[in-house]
Amino acid sequence: MSYTDLAAIVLAAGQGTRMRSDRPKVAHSLAGRPLLGHVLATLDAVGTDQAVVVVGPDMPAVASIAAPRPTVLQAERLGTAHAALQARPVLPEAAGTVLILFGDTPLIRPETLRAMVAARAEAAVVVLGFAAADPTGYGRLVTAADGTLDAIVEHKDATAAQRAITLCNSGVMAVDGARLFPLLERVGNANAKGEYYLTDIVALARADGLRCAVVTGDEAEMAGINDRAQLAAAEGVVQGRLRAAAMAGGVTMTDPATVFLSIDTRLGRDVTVGPFCVFGPGVTVGDGAEIKGFCHFEGCTVEAGAVVGPYARLRPDAAVGEGAHIGNFVEVKKATVEAGAKVNHLTYIGDARVGAKANVGAGTITCNYDGFAKHHTDIGAGAFIGSNSALVAPVSIGDGAIVGAGSVITQDVPTDTLALTRAPQTAREGWAKKFRDHMKRLTGKG
Amino acid sequence: MSYTDLAAIVLAAGQGTRMRSDRPKVAHSLAGRPLLGHVLATLDAVGTDQAVVVVGPDMPAVASIAAPRPTVLQAERLGTAHAALQARPVLPEAAGTVLILFGDTPLIRPETLRAMVAARAEAAVVVLGFAAADPTGYGRLVTAADGTLDAIVEHKDATAAQRAITLCNSGVMAVDGARLFPLLERVGNANAKGEYYLTDIVALARADGLRCAVVTGDEAEMAGINDRAQLAAAEGVVQGRLRAAAMAGGVTMTDPATVFLSIDTRLGRDVTVGPFCVFGPGVTVGDGAEIKGFCHFEGCTVEAGAVVGPYARLRPDAAVGEGAHIGNFVEVKKATVEAGAKVNHLTYIGDARVGAKANVGAGTITCNYDGFAKHHTDIGAGAFIGSNSALVAPVSIGDGAIVGAGSVITQDVPTDTLALTRAPQTAREGWAKKFRDHMKRLTGKG
Amino acid sequence: MSYTDLAAIVLAAGQGTRMRSDRPKVAHSLAGRPLLGHVLATLDAVGTDQAVVVVGPDMPAVASIAAPRPTVLQAERLGTAHAALQARPVLPEAAGTVLILFGDTPLIRPETLRAMVAARAEAAVVVLGFAAADPTGYGRLVTAADGTLDAIVEHKDATAAQRAITLCNSGVMAVDGARLFPLLERVGNANAKGEYYLTDIVALARADGLRCAVVTGDEAEMAGINDRAQLAAAEGVVQGRLRAAAMAGGVTMTDPATVFLSIDTRLGRDVTVGPFCVFGPGVTVGDGAEIKGFCHFEGCTVEAGAVVGPYARLRPDAAVGEGAHIGNFVEVKKATVEAGAKVNHLTYIGDARVGAKANVGAGTITCNYDGFAKHHTDIGAGAFIGSNSALVAPVSIGDGAIVGAGSVITQDVPTDTLALTRAPQTAREGWAKKFRDHMKRLTGKG
Repeated sequence: MSYTDLAAIVLAAGQGTRMRSDRPKVAHSLAGRPLLGHVLATLDAVGTDQAVVVVGPDMPAVASIAAPRPTVLQAERLGTAHAALQARPVLPEAAGTVLILFGDTPLIRPETLRAMVAARAEAAVVVLGFAAADPTGYGRLVTAADGTLDAIVEHKDATAAQRAITLCNSGVMAVDGARLFPLLERVGNANAKGEYYLTDIVALARADGLRCAVVTGDEAEMAGINDRAQLAAAEGVVQGRLRAAAMAGGVTMTDPATVFLSIDTRLGRDVTVGPFCVFGPGVTVGDGAEIKGFCHFEGCTVEAGAVVGPYARLRPDAAVGEGAHIGNFVEVKKATVEAGAKVNHLTYIGDARVGAKANVGAGTITCNYDGFAKHHTDIGAGAFIGSNSALVAPVSIGDGAIVGAGSVITQDVPTDTLALTRAPQTAREGWAKKFRDHMKRLTGKG
Repeated sequence: MSYTDLAAIVLAAGQGTRMRSDRPKVAHSLAGRPLLGHVLATLDAVGTDQAVVVVGPDMPAVASIAAPRPTVLQAERLGTAHAALQARPVLPEAAGTVLILFGDTPLIRPETLRAMVAARAEAAVVVLGFAAADPTGYGRLVTAADGTLDAIVEHKDATAAQRAITLCNSGVMAVDGARLFPLLERVGNANAKGEYYLTDIVALARADGLRCAVVTGDEAEMAGINDRAQLAAAEGVVQGRLRAAAMAGGVTMTDPATVFLSIDTRLGRDVTVGPFCVFGPGVTVGDGAEIKGFCHFEGCTVEAGAVVGPYARLRPDAAVGEGAHIGNFVEVKKATVEAGAKVNHLTYIGDARVGAKANVGAGTITCNYDGFAKHHTDIGAGAFIGSNSALVAPVSIGDGAIVGAGSVITQDVPTDTLALTRAPQTAREGWAKKFRDHMKRLTGKG
Repeated sequence: MSYTDLAAIVLAAGQGTRMRSDRPKVAHSLAGRPLLGHVLATLDAVGTDQAVVVVGPDMPAVASIAAPRPTVLQAERLGTAHAALQARPVLPEAAGTVLILFGDTPLIRPETLRAMVAARAEAAVVVLGFAAADPTGYGRLVTAADGTLDAIVEHKDATAAQRAITLCNSGVMAVDGARLFPLLERVGNANAKGEYYLTDIVALARADGLRCAVVTGDEAEMAGINDRAQLAAAEGVVQGRLRAAAMAGGVTMTDPATVFLSIDTRLGRDVTVGPFCVFGPGVTVGDGAEIKGFCHFEGCTVEAGAVVGPYARLRPDAAVGEGAHIGNFVEVKKATVEAGAKVNHLTYIGDARVGAKANVGAGTITCNYDGFAKHHTDIGAGAFIGSNSALVAPVSIGDGAIVGAGSVITQDVPTDTLALTRAPQTAREGWAKKFRDHMKRLTGKG
């Protein structure tokens, strides 16, 4: 489809006061992506050529989510028809169809929008409806036997017969691009709130003798986010979709309800994920990898057959190689742990390479920061880093080298070399007993 | 309201054998507070002037929860009327109204009790009822058209018509203080179990021509705790209330079901809480703070804009300043981390101050304990503590000082000074290869 | 019961393509035990003397789960009757009753099978049925007034009246051992898929004038595992059973839904388990132990009154003694922590003994591995290990000895001795400021 076929206007000017937030509502995050980002991604999936986002005053955060798509400002909040009309300057050429969506309604699926676009061929205005479990309060869609939309009747204006209708108005529309702005201009505000309602273009189109139609989606898709509880509920819906897709692809989750995924998480076949894991944006896990419980991942790669966790944190640009092991209380950041290497306990690996089959002992720290800049640590293949060592970057440990336990390594260690820093062990026999006796007298403890 | 207006008797003498516990039932904890504590807090919210707790033999734990409120002993368990009668010596002066509650029924809301107290003005006895989804087994409340309570009929004694009544008896009552003890004295025990039932005062009051009345609460409020499964279910109810209140106040939780709050948890506006977090008693988090997943907090303060976790444990008297960062696998106890300071990885900070904008490297330990007493570590503003250092308290690191990685600091470090303890790095070239060759021969591995 | 009374055939030859796994379906794990293992354990509980597992080609993993029970190969997948017939060579002598079960249906309870065996006394074939909430697609069990099974009618062949039957066929059977194989031999494959169906033996037995009967179980027991979502759902059922049993025995769980147990987990009375805990196979926890949140246990023992976590990982052969404390970010593996000892922070204890009342400081590492073999660390009773120490095994710390903070101990420390390795502390006054000034000029930061 080209631009002249399909465009979209996304209404995102609402303040969202019920969120009780300093952040605009549509900038709140769902599965690692802003609400508005979900709507725009859905439009991309549908193949919209141009999308315009209508924002309110002082919403740079929304504009940056929308970018590179243009935004237009609705300076005063005079209603949805007024909001959509602001898009006119940036949609100068009439598209075949213009979708009008809401930035706080992130769950509508691409296939639902595609059905609307398809239905638009036979109607000037297509309204997205849904069968409401409890229609109270919603506008009802009054349809003819042939599926034509006759009217939208607000709940308060509905007759008893109309109130029995469960097919309700979501507010989302697909409109003939040539007719949209002329219709919007004719919408009036002679109502209780004095607002210009988008919904009114259906009556105007009908008055012109134009056909309107309904496409029906699931009620779950229509969920709008107005407060934090609704945000959490929508998160649950998205997580449910992501978890089901992962399991269908061959991932075992002990309890899917305890695994949090992002929109872009990629988990291979026969990956197992223990309880209590969080996958932030940008994570890829290869086939057969075992992710034990309590892991926290962001922007990282785990290759096939690796074993990670429990309690492993992989931060951005961590790359765990094939069959490598990352154990408990280990943090890896901007570092490559090559195939078969082991970093099993209580370790920080940052700005580093851990060579293939190297073994990094418990309590090892790569000292990557000097208070101003980050420096690199290079650990060679097959090297063995003794426990509780500090590797002060920039520093390089050669292939097959050994670092003695408890060392502070500040100079490069050549291949196959043993390096250590160690003061001699001294002993004072009986001192411990004397100290205890003294302290017992002093404190009365013991 | 003064004491002569409203008093309360809380029945807490039950053993709770179905809990299978050595602890008295009402001493079990819900959202960080004992069951009995919930009931007493509700009474405080209502404004009861005097509350008496009826305990069983050998329940010092219950008495200490009740304190400073008085307890009276029910030496033999002869029924609820008998239990309530034990309170007579410590409620010598007739209150206007006496509430009678159960220590194992912690979910009743203050507004429900207030409605009972209000209804007491028009009735000698007010019974708290509820519409049961399944009334089987409950006593039915037989009411007249004007809302008067005519009788309480036990399930086994009920006619078919009475069994169709869904309004059931919770057992909770508000009674005219002048009439309570005389009524209780007249209760008999001519029944199958030979017990004195509090419920019987309704029939006695009716026989005296006194008006009785019903106030209705939600069935969920009436949940009594008799076993661990019911305890867990009640915890779920309380957590649901606490989470909803937090979200309504502007807190984002990725999944509210994975966040555990305490009764007194205070979370500011725009706080975000990742999955898997536990807030024990006494936690306050300031506006806009980001709590990543897997955090465990007790008795601590996190100020506005701080970033904490994942995997951070803040123990009692930890105070995290504005914009400070506490990272993964970090424990802070009885310590102040001042504004903008960073403690990001694998660190224990106990009995300490970390000055503003100081940076504490990975693997740092404040050695606060000598086996007998705890000592203080003071880290100055802007100081930089190299990774894997041990700071042996009592010790002071001056403002802007630097501690070299892997040091064991036992003497104070002056302002702007570099301090370190470090043995020289030694290297034995080829040693690592020889060792491996030797071990391979010895073990057959490699 | 002896072998001649009760035998079983477990059908486990299915590939399980919907699992999208390289592992055979019945080798996937549920509550720490393979699906097939659950079925075999149920048979053991019932008291089956001999069980034969029918496997498909290339399923060594299944054979090893079955061991020491024999397996027989179904080389071609020609249907369930054909599969069961493969067992004939290893069940040479007719048992009184032969149970036929499915390896991917792990939730059937022993009592259900016992009821089938009992019913077998009065019937040649006993079919396990269940009342389906939605019977669509299931075979219906057509029964007479006296409970006799007249026929099994497939959904597609059923009349409207038969489709109204909700009693459905689970496929599980108990068959007269003397008649089983002759009946199986007579099953034909004249059906759409050309398969030999086990179900058909009911019609054959009826044609012979033999009585068939139905035993009814819960629908939840019948759940077969065909994909990862069903596996997760079954895990939920098993976890629900295990959690309920633990709570009934006197365990408090803040939220049972966040605690994952194994089939063999044993938790004592008055154990408390905080949120987010995983109990792998082989864990025993003594009375009154407190397991704080975020713990991960496998193959370990925690004795009465111990306090563990949060964030503690106990690996196989960890034994935590009475009243001992294991704190946060602590890993214990193949080690005994004796009564009253404390290992509270950021520590790795592997291949070790920590003596009674010893105190192991934060950041301590037992260096148990030299790249080839594991060595033992012995810490005596009442010893005090200073923070950030490395104990290089094999090494022994005597009773009551003290190790200074930050030491690397390579030689044994005698009783009551103070041992340490420490370079002298050096200080360069003003160096830190000069360094900062230099770096600020260089980087423009600061």
